[in-house]
Amino acid sequence: MGRVTVRRPVLKITADGSRSRPDTLAAEEPLEIRVNGKPLSVTMRTPGHDVELAHGFLLTEGVIGDREELASARYCDSPGPDGRNTYNVLDIALAPGVAPPDASVERNFYTTSSCGVCGKAALDSVKLRTRHSPATDPLSVTAETVIGFPEQLRAAQRVFDSTGGLHAAGLFDADGGLLVVREDVGRHNAVDKALGWALLERRVPLTGCVLMVSGRASFELVQKAAMAGVPMLTAVSAPSSLAVDLAEEQGMTLIGFLRGSSMNVYTGAERISTPEIT
Amino acid sequence: MGRVTVRRPVLKITADGSRSRPDTLAAEEPLEIRVNGKPLSVTMRTPGHDVELAHGFLLTEGVIGDREELASARYCDSPGPDGRNTYNVLDIALAPGVAPPDASVERNFYTTSSCGVCGKAALDSVKLRTRHSPATDPLSVTAETVIGFPEQLRAAQRVFDSTGGLHAAGLFDADGGLLVVREDVGRHNAVDKALGWALLERRVPLTGCVLMVSGRASFELVQKAAMAGVPMLTAVSAPSSLAVDLAEEQGMTLIGFLRGSSMNVYTGAERISTPEIT
Repeated sequence: MGRVTVRRPVLKITADGSRSRPDTLAAEEPLEIRVNGKPLSVTMRTPGHDVELAHGFLLTEGVIGDREELASARYCDSPGPDGRNTYNVLDIALAPGVAPPDASVERNFYTTSSCGVCGKAALDSVKLRTRHSPATDPLSVTAETVIGFPEQLRAAQRVFDSTGGLHAAGLFDADGGLLVVREDVGRHNAVDKALGWALLERRVPLTGCVLMVSGRASFELVQKAAMAGVPMLTAVSAPSSLAVDLAEEQGMTLIGFLRGSSMNVYTGAERISTPEIT
Repeated sequence: MGRVTVRRPVLKITADGSRSRPDTLAAEEPLEIRVNGKPLSVTMRTPGHDVELAHGFLLTEGVIGDREELASARYCDSPGPDGRNTYNVLDIALAPGVAPPDASVERNFYTTSSCGVCGKAALDSVKLRTRHSPATDPLSVTAETVIGFPEQLRAAQRVFDSTGGLHAAGLFDADGGLLVVREDVGRHNAVDKALGWALLERRVPLTGCVLMVSGRASFELVQKAAMAGVPMLTAVSAPSSLAVDLAEEQGMTLIGFLRGSSMNVYTGAERISTPEIT
């Protein structure tokens, strides 16, 4: 494919003057996911690892739970203006007996609610849909190992190095071993790609593993981690209130502001071993 | 409302040990927007400025073009589990004669395309839907003024100061005067709130104005700026390839990596005056 980055001219203005030079940008293109022939969603993503992205998306939306529930994934023949295939439409066939998703996956949490729409309804819907609860996961990680995650993630971000503009999601084991890292212009896409990789590797539920994201921890990212059975989510930046609520309800460890040699543990601190709290 | 931030206990672990303390989080709750009685979208947002958010969302999705096209916006009576109104459902009535949006606003750009789905189709759909082209906007801003935007935006971010975790969008005039700043857990929501404010203030199209965002410049954000007639978009971080393509096609000035005393100008450099290029 080779469309992960794009070269463009840029005028760089500094205190010393301005000069024109080539710049490398992260590619962003729409991906339409069709399930059993019907359009399900369009997401703006960085091309590459699209099959993982589709697996992760369908996993975290509760459509599939293991790789056997997805029969095939192939690019449609969808020519662009130049007549060449855009590779932007992915056709998914579910295995026989697997129920296709409702028209609007994005509103699932709302349709399960009878109380208007509120944070509680959103939390409840995740509870209803998760097949794997991280609550009983005996994962234990040392604080020192956790503190090493951001540097490992950053070192593995190949596209970020050239563009300075991509989100990343990485999966680690309890000893700090990096299992996979995926990058995307969209935070949720980077997570879907990493979780889709895990599903294809038959590692879901991700017992004993840690998901690390390069930005903030939102409700949506905690939801995705919960759907994949991840017992610990760590983020470089801040969590939202609803992200903390959901992590608590799911029995997940949630860590934010993981920078330098410190971190904030919002829920599930028993999984972090330190000299002070062991 | 008073739900912009939430207090939670947190265990802070540093090299010196760990201690428990209260932490302030940015609130995140779902907002359902209904139009003429029908659910249109659910977005996870930071409560507050919801009416602006709805105006901005409907503006940037091409449903309305001025404030008179929206007849009323009021919270539904949507009680949560505790029996109190959640203030998470906003009912919009359009003025007579204004066409309600299609079921899936989010796929508009796709349905206008006959070539599968590709970046070109996404660009074309914005061209079809914009009422205000920034291409002929005579805005001129000095490099010095632009370089001052991030600090001004940051200084005006009240919620960020307490939570460290919010996106911001600000509107500036050509002399660097800050017109408005809005914060949200979602980048697109912060932009919708700022643009919705402008619509309510009868400032759309935003001729002669600059939109500044705290993160990356994605296709979606350039699209929103274009729909509001903004001639210049500046971002602290990187743009994507499709964001640059769209800015170029719309005749918009797009600036990224606006940090310290430097910036990268991707399109429309003629609107930036420097000693070198005037």
